[in-house]
Amino acid sequence: MLKFEVSKECKNTKARTGIITTSHGDIQTPIFMPVGTLGSVKSVSVEELKECEAQIILGNTYHLYLRPGCDVISHIKGLHKFMNWDRPILTDSGGFQFFSLAKLAKFSDEGVSFQSHIDGSSHKFTPEKAVEIQAILGSDIMMSLDWCIGHPATKSESLEALNKTTKWAKRGLDFWRSKCLEATSSSSLSSLSSPSLLPKSAYGLPNSLFGIVQGGMYKELRAISAEQLIELDFPGYAVGGLSVGEPTELMYEIAQHTVPLLPSDKPRYVMGVGTPENLIEMVAMGVDMFDCVMPSRNARNGQLFTEQGTINISNAGFKLDSDPIDKNCGCYTCKSYSRAYLRHLYKSRELLAYRLNTIHNLHFYLNLMKQIRKSIEDGDFIEFKKNFYSKLQK
Amino acid sequence: MLKFEVSKECKNTKARTGIITTSHGDIQTPIFMPVGTLGSVKSVSVEELKECEAQIILGNTYHLYLRPGCDVISHIKGLHKFMNWDRPILTDSGGFQFFSLAKLAKFSDEGVSFQSHIDGSSHKFTPEKAVEIQAILGSDIMMSLDWCIGHPATKSESLEALNKTTKWAKRGLDFWRSKCLEATSSSSLSSLSSPSLLPKSAYGLPNSLFGIVQGGMYKELRAISAEQLIELDFPGYAVGGLSVGEPTELMYEIAQHTVPLLPSDKPRYVMGVGTPENLIEMVAMGVDMFDCVMPSRNARNGQLFTEQGTINISNAGFKLDSDPIDKNCGCYTCKSYSRAYLRHLYKSRELLAYRLNTIHNLHFYLNLMKQIRKSIEDGDFIEFKKNFYSKLQK
Repeated sequence: MLKFEVSKECKNTKARTGIITTSHGDIQTPIFMPVGTLGSVKSVSVEELKECEAQIILGNTYHLYLRPGCDVISHIKGLHKFMNWDRPILTDSGGFQFFSLAKLAKFSDEGVSFQSHIDGSSHKFTPEKAVEIQAILGSDIMMSLDWCIGHPATKSESLEALNKTTKWAKRGLDFWRSKCLEATSSSSLSSLSSPSLLPKSAYGLPNSLFGIVQGGMYKELRAISAEQLIELDFPGYAVGGLSVGEPTELMYEIAQHTVPLLPSDKPRYVMGVGTPENLIEMVAMGVDMFDCVMPSRNARNGQLFTEQGTINISNAGFKLDSDPIDKNCGCYTCKSYSRAYLRHLYKSRELLAYRLNTIHNLHFYLNLMKQIRKSIEDGDFIEFKKNFYSKLQK
Repeated sequence: MLKFEVSKECKNTKARTGIITTSHGDIQTPIFMPVGTLGSVKSVSVEELKECEAQIILGNTYHLYLRPGCDVISHIKGLHKFMNWDRPILTDSGGFQFFSLAKLAKFSDEGVSFQSHIDGSSHKFTPEKAVEIQAILGSDIMMSLDWCIGHPATKSESLEALNKTTKWAKRGLDFWRSKCLEATSSSSLSSLSSPSLLPKSAYGLPNSLFGIVQGGMYKELRAISAEQLIELDFPGYAVGGLSVGEPTELMYEIAQHTVPLLPSDKPRYVMGVGTPENLIEMVAMGVDMFDCVMPSRNARNGQLFTEQGTINISNAGFKLDSDPIDKNCGCYTCKSYSRAYLRHLYKSRELLAYRLNTIHNLHFYLNLMKQIRKSIEDGDFIEFKKNFYSKLQK
């Protein structure tokens, strides 16, 4: 099972460093986790992820369940082997996908019935099945199936979603404790059709399960959700349902309220966030883990991150620009290529463009987190934060 | 200027090994040249090309002239620097593109007027300008502007094209000899609009120009074309206008007739060819150089080369296949990934799929040429050829 130890705390903020120990190695927090929805962080190789110093990546339960499917992943003995990644993997439960692909999903107390966005075939996720699939994926950190809502949502909608989320969290946790936590026989995971699919607790390796706090944009509901989940005693806690369309200030307000409610001796994860500014602000609130498609998706749209802010590589001003994206950046892309070349590749829709842009953006995010960790360790996180904002050209 | 030396000749065929010396290093022939039309071999990095042991790659004059344009390439001081490739580059003249994009091109004695396939803007290539652009690209081996025709074509069409090709070859060669071959001042290349674009003979480095034999599928015309070009005394010769829709047997017949007409002390290059079988057959005819989009384009369509023949990675039979594409292949893809993973990536349209497939196919082609070279050196090319066919599952 997962262990977490806080290494150093910042004096004047809640920022902290720590170490999460998993079956696939240690993770130094606070961390940013690149998103590899379908078993690949889009356009980059696992070697390039390591060059960017990625410590852990995300997989998505909903997407991997549909494609390639549990039969394939279990046959190859887990997502790590399948995609040739030997560091930790966290898997999202699919809750967010049922929200974002809501037209295809029907919620009940029991679980979620849905139609595949690929071929329209019918499927059902229960909290137990979400854990089981993640065990088959061989995830190091599994997420409870949650009921995610958008913004705006009424208080009663938010309450309903949080109540369902707590009930599902308990069911998933019970399933995990009985089927995954202890050594199990290969016949003890039984809800999937073929007995040959049944994993021994993630291929014999200990794994972990996090609860997800919901409650919409209502502070009192966030408090209730946190309290109920803490009662269940998860190995770690996530804040879900943020970055779903609300203004940044509201997101900060809810995070500021919610994060301190979570146990300080467990990892705290804010899901789906965010911009570099969001990361720094939330590290200051005591958040340990982040994930977001922003660096990789924006890279594929030509938006590149620098300390001064973002640039769009298709800009005509870069046509004859022989400088790298950022002269101070140590990534492969900046060490090897000019903005003029990157602009040309991007405008010509050359496949290499997506890779080179993604490497730069992931390096930027991961290097930012590394600098944040260092500044906390060195006791000058507040100074670092100030410098970060002073460099930004608004 | 380019040097060529034959190293070893096969006893019972015309197959031979040799060394081409360029400003960017030596090339061991016979070679296959990966195609990097727009300054990138689609989906792969220059490091990956080197891992596949690519010795020289192609760029395309027509495409690079339109995008990013000579102003960009000259500003960055050549295609090598632009794309971070320090080995030799051969550039096609654009002749084939005027043929394949014929609707947009109007031929005259003077040259080709055409509209950009990107924005419809009007442009004109003359034989002189084709050389000048290639000098600006910094190409190591430039190709004469030729008049390419398809199959079928009448004898008079073929004769007209060959006559034009010879006239253009002479004009291009004269231009190259007067402007590029000897040290030139920066004002001596003058047909492009801005004087600041004018290169000193490929950034001070010696370069070379090949003539292109045309003549359609008429042996006597091929002989006339070869004779006229040899008269002009080019540093190397290419056979163009093959693999333009004719049956394989006819292509072999024309190549078999034409290649031996070319001087044995100069490199012989058959353009746009072909399958692994085509390469072996034409090496036996004495061909030293090949290029083709087949390994890279087919990779992006899921077709992968093996010694037993091609496979399509999207095939359902690979769903649970934990083996690599080819157990005996030493490429990055085969060392790291299963067919099941490659099938999943390809079916999910993950960008990584195109890269991993392309690496495998390029490695296959380049390794095939390496084995061919070794077999010629070892005196057992005929045995190698026999084994090659015996492994193929028809």
